[in-house]
Amino acid sequence: MINETYRTMLQGKSIIRELSEYAAKRGQEIGYHNVFDYSLGNPSVPCPKEYTEAMIQILKEEDPMTVHGYSPSLGIQSVRKAIADSLNRRFSMDYEEEHIFMASGAAGALAHGFRCVTKPGDEILVFAPYFPEYGPYITQTGAVMKVVSADTDDLQINFKALEEQMNEKVMAVLVNTPNNPSGIAYSPKTMERLGDFLEMKQKQYGHDIFLISDEPYREIVFQGTEPVYVSKFYDNTISCYSFSKSLSLPGERIGYVAVNPRCRGAKDLAAMCGQISRGIGHNCPPSSVQLAVARILDKTSDLSVYETNRDLLYDALTGLGFQVVKPGGTFYMFPKALEEDAAIFCQKAKAYDLILVPSDNFGVPGYFRMAYCMDTEKVKRSVPVLERFVKAEYPGVGER
Amino acid sequence: MINETYRTMLQGKSIIRELSEYAAKRGQEIGYHNVFDYSLGNPSVPCPKEYTEAMIQILKEEDPMTVHGYSPSLGIQSVRKAIADSLNRRFSMDYEEEHIFMASGAAGALAHGFRCVTKPGDEILVFAPYFPEYGPYITQTGAVMKVVSADTDDLQINFKALEEQMNEKVMAVLVNTPNNPSGIAYSPKTMERLGDFLEMKQKQYGHDIFLISDEPYREIVFQGTEPVYVSKFYDNTISCYSFSKSLSLPGERIGYVAVNPRCRGAKDLAAMCGQISRGIGHNCPPSSVQLAVARILDKTSDLSVYETNRDLLYDALTGLGFQVVKPGGTFYMFPKALEEDAAIFCQKAKAYDLILVPSDNFGVPGYFRMAYCMDTEKVKRSVPVLERFVKAEYPGVGER
Repeated sequence: MINETYRTMLQGKSIIRELSEYAAKRGQEIGYHNVFDYSLGNPSVPCPKEYTEAMIQILKEEDPMTVHGYSPSLGIQSVRKAIADSLNRRFSMDYEEEHIFMASGAAGALAHGFRCVTKPGDEILVFAPYFPEYGPYITQTGAVMKVVSADTDDLQINFKALEEQMNEKVMAVLVNTPNNPSGIAYSPKTMERLGDFLEMKQKQYGHDIFLISDEPYREIVFQGTEPVYVSKFYDNTISCYSFSKSLSLPGERIGYVAVNPRCRGAKDLAAMCGQISRGIGHNCPPSSVQLAVARILDKTSDLSVYETNRDLLYDALTGLGFQVVKPGGTFYMFPKALEEDAAIFCQKAKAYDLILVPSDNFGVPGYFRMAYCMDTEKVKRSVPVLERFVKAEYPGVGER
Repeated sequence: MINETYRTMLQGKSIIRELSEYAAKRGQEIGYHNVFDYSLGNPSVPCPKEYTEAMIQILKEEDPMTVHGYSPSLGIQSVRKAIADSLNRRFSMDYEEEHIFMASGAAGALAHGFRCVTKPGDEILVFAPYFPEYGPYITQTGAVMKVVSADTDDLQINFKALEEQMNEKVMAVLVNTPNNPSGIAYSPKTMERLGDFLEMKQKQYGHDIFLISDEPYREIVFQGTEPVYVSKFYDNTISCYSFSKSLSLPGERIGYVAVNPRCRGAKDLAAMCGQISRGIGHNCPPSSVQLAVARILDKTSDLSVYETNRDLLYDALTGLGFQVVKPGGTFYMFPKALEEDAAIFCQKAKAYDLILVPSDNFGVPGYFRMAYCMDTEKVKRSVPVLERFVKAEYPGVGER
């Protein structure tokens, strides 16, 4: 019989998707260049030309039986080794090939990470504001997602709320830094405090608590922000990485799980991912993409546009009187709405062809997300529109 | 805490993988060309050159933002449409784009298919002999796999055993024709009888029973065998297809789910796959591979070697006195072992560098599988070795 759980989910449309569909439709009416579509977190720069060159070379020169052949269940060995070496070089870690599991993007990596260290009924903590897909990601494993409310002053971790939510049933804690939707990067101080807190709770409860680190934005950190490598701050860390944003390859579904060698049962954990794959039909990212990415591991797309846009937009928003914590990375910003109900605020903005996402689904009411992964020229053109919108709908705001 | 279910699975090694690893190791000692490795079902012919050409053209000429961009959650629309059109043309079906869901190979397609039409505790019937991975595929959804024992006379469906296993808790039946491990293709008569039986049982129980059709070998059907398109025989059919074998792209993870338009809730079912993906971290096959495959949908690799090998090996085996049902497709053969315990039989064969897989994990004791996806030259060289093995270990067999 048809599974009613999944059928019911068809009713619950994602607000981000709805807004992005609206933007596309509106674009057909007035030209998409006139729609200031801040809805979707899609990279706005192409992959580096080195990726295309590597892939064409592989297709032309390598044996197609190898290039397109089954990859072993944990990923192609040489690729896993190359990733371990790259991480060791860049972050002074000591990964071996055995700690790396190739996964189809961060979503695939998280699907394995959660299942590795929780069983149905266990709790997983997430920090608001958080990526709304964490809901279905976690719930469908059978684990229970619990939200730690935000510290809206600086959007670092709210340790008081964390202390309140922590209990013996918590087997994993999920962090995402730099963060979608806020763009905030956790400081080394935040990470140290989190590591100490989890160590203390592990001892208190007498069981492991794993830190699952969702890192698709790891390479998008702006000047003046100190990058952190999460695994350095806590031994029981499982890093979930994606090349979607760093190489602008979101459709190619390529990423990995990197298990901290000091994790309890570190090599078992990576191997267990291969077992989890059997049940969820994962079976590794595309073999040719694994091979191509391994040739350009320390490269990224030209990500500078995101910092340019951040500066532009941050200055414009604060100038207009918005409260906003300055993002340290990603291509998101998370300003406070100019009225209590963020949905109404974003609804009003739509009339100006400003497509903003209300924050309720991110676990913090009264804010909105702007995904500024777009041409700088368009960000610039959006500033006077933002000004017109604020002046007309919220007169008096920002005037001293 | 570490999930003990998955950790325990690390102990249970796949016999196929173990034998294939042994073959590789033995190959390092005596040269792999001297190891008659019939263990693994890996395509032995390259992808068609049209695939490589299509991919290079896409990489050189198309916008990288489109080629490597996120695909919508059900797959790229134009690709889904092209697949529907191709299936309609070839099998006189009436699929629309809405019935197609792009999946990462047959494993990905099955992971979605099972979850669409069962919930934990429901039963799914499989027919022996069956692909051993069906065990973890099904068990990890929470459903229960029940095995319908084989009719070893012709390896078509054992309807008496089916009648015995059928009960109200069965919500889905899994077929795989042409079959791994037997190479047998179900006849139209078998499929008609199965369709009638399931229709009757649906009425009797008052609920739907879905037929899930695992079709990676659909294009590998030999002369004299009438190909069947499973969905033609039963409305509530969900086809799970992979290009792994037809285009020799097993590592690229590309396939699809095609829901029979006459299924109950047909369009919901395909859409539900997008919801299931959120929980298992699937998120579509690689975008560039979707685009490339869509350009060569009606092409296959040169699959003729498999029929040549089938003929050679079938004649040799029957000549040596083996009982074997002649395969109608795939690149597998499933002869009866020459002693009761297939594991001992295959162990003895190993001493002759003949790598054969005992049948116990396929749900039928006393047989063995040969995957004859290899160069014909090697199959030919294996024949005198088979003869030496049989004459030495089982003298008298095959003599009249």
